[in-house]
Amino acid sequence: MAQAHEQPHSDPYPTRLRQARDAIERMDPIVHSRAPDRWAGPLDEVALSNYERDGFLWFKGFFSRHRVEPFFDELKAIANDKTWMSSEQVIRDPDTGRIRSVFGMHRISRRFEELTRDARILGMARQLLGSDVYIHQSRINDKFGFEGSGFDWHSDFETWHAEDGMPRMRAVSASIMLTENNEFNGPLMLIPGSHHWFVPCVGKTPDQNWKASLKAQRIGVPSQESLSELARSGGIRAPKGPAGSLLLFECNTLHASNENMSPWPRSNLFFVYNSVRNLPRAPYAAPTRRPHFLAERENPKQLEMHDRYPELAG
Amino acid sequence: MAQAHEQPHSDPYPTRLRQARDAIERMDPIVHSRAPDRWAGPLDEVALSNYERDGFLWFKGFFSRHRVEPFFDELKAIANDKTWMSSEQVIRDPDTGRIRSVFGMHRISRRFEELTRDARILGMARQLLGSDVYIHQSRINDKFGFEGSGFDWHSDFETWHAEDGMPRMRAVSASIMLTENNEFNGPLMLIPGSHHWFVPCVGKTPDQNWKASLKAQRIGVPSQESLSELARSGGIRAPKGPAGSLLLFECNTLHASNENMSPWPRSNLFFVYNSVRNLPRAPYAAPTRRPHFLAERENPKQLEMHDRYPELAG
Repeated sequence: MAQAHEQPHSDPYPTRLRQARDAIERMDPIVHSRAPDRWAGPLDEVALSNYERDGFLWFKGFFSRHRVEPFFDELKAIANDKTWMSSEQVIRDPDTGRIRSVFGMHRISRRFEELTRDARILGMARQLLGSDVYIHQSRINDKFGFEGSGFDWHSDFETWHAEDGMPRMRAVSASIMLTENNEFNGPLMLIPGSHHWFVPCVGKTPDQNWKASLKAQRIGVPSQESLSELARSGGIRAPKGPAGSLLLFECNTLHASNENMSPWPRSNLFFVYNSVRNLPRAPYAAPTRRPHFLAERENPKQLEMHDRYPELAG
Repeated sequence: MAQAHEQPHSDPYPTRLRQARDAIERMDPIVHSRAPDRWAGPLDEVALSNYERDGFLWFKGFFSRHRVEPFFDELKAIANDKTWMSSEQVIRDPDTGRIRSVFGMHRISRRFEELTRDARILGMARQLLGSDVYIHQSRINDKFGFEGSGFDWHSDFETWHAEDGMPRMRAVSASIMLTENNEFNGPLMLIPGSHHWFVPCVGKTPDQNWKASLKAQRIGVPSQESLSELARSGGIRAPKGPAGSLLLFECNTLHASNENMSPWPRSNLFFVYNSVRNLPRAPYAAPTRRPHFLAERENPKQLEMHDRYPELAG
């Protein structure tokens, strides 16, 4: 696949360029449902407007701690399983060798798979994306006490577009906190309003870039000038709350996290919902495709709501 | 000088050991003034009791922004001065080569020197240390936007005892914020109550350890077990506030700071006040002494208050 700088004009979001260029105004809706479908719920207009303005929504204590504990236990089981730990789906911390991320969680575990189809989360994802949806990627990010290193500022969409061929901004991530996220254990930080801009990044994508980038991202990193301008304009927010809290954030919202300086582990679960009308093509700016556990292509199955009481369903 | 594990029993705070050992209960007072001198001010009994409990006191907006701006300007002047930048007193960031710390500020600049003798700060230092005091060390720590790396958890006293021969815990640091310190630009974090314990550290001090340790500390770092226990017991606090805010923290309070993930620079000024009754001896656990700009020995001049209106002084 050709690099972006050799692309035809048809790519609205060119990136991995030879030379810096200014941020490009977003060309896609943020809430894709059009009125009156937009008002069919579950999110009300205040929430939708906040999401359009900020690029994320925070639901403190969305689930109970009791409800999410089993997921954290499954992560610990993976950490103790040598076969899993040597799998490509498990990304280790560059400094310590301990688990940093596990990808494809919804294929590993029925419990995770059912959670991706939780009626409330799936309902919000469908409303925001204005269509049926499927899971583009799922993962757990884990930071051990005093050890977990951070993630530099980036837009997920920039990578998914460049390396996975996701055409447009029509995806949303749901992040569920499996532990408390507090000021000191490296919570997710976001730049409100940054999703309104696509920041083209400089640097050609190396082959199999993902093997390095999932440990420490070097390519697909916005310039300090762009970050400064967006952070000075929108500020920075770091939602905090107990295990079970939920963050929905738009695929192009700039986010990062700092090191865990505390004894308290920080573990978050991520599901990426993509619209079935936004299926990946060939990568826009990478020589080869990434593995299926990073970017679903073989089986983009539209999700059906999971109902624990199917006998009551209509 | 012999290493600590070869020391006689007389050292109450052995460190840089071959093997781990448990934390030792502090053997020195925290507030050294004895009643009724203790109550002669300027700190009242509530403040003194908080300092005894937590190991620090936070004065939000102690100086006006206007008052501290010139100090930040002097730092920028040093950053633009090639001679200074090649001096040993200027410590550079291991990743970026930009200023991380400048030592001996009170010898470089009259403005800084007079600030160390500010009547209010000097009055508090004398009250806490129960004697006349002098400047053991002064420095600026600087973190550029998106660049400044962090400092791992440590006790200053541990290093000053091991490498500078400071006998007892009878020193206090005053940190004055030259920029706003907020959640995202790597503010100082402290473990309240940690100053009640001396945590012996494992590892022999290399010769000229300071050349590496001021960039990234490897020796004199408490074990994760000790840190966990103290942080789980006392929690973590990160005082935040505008430029001009003041932090007083006891020499043995564990502290750290994370990376600056924001576009906003973070710059703090430090003066270390040591009691004239606590003058350094030979290092307790290091082969050689550190340079004078890290540990004053040649001219421990007791400080006189600086009065901008000497004609009004008694």
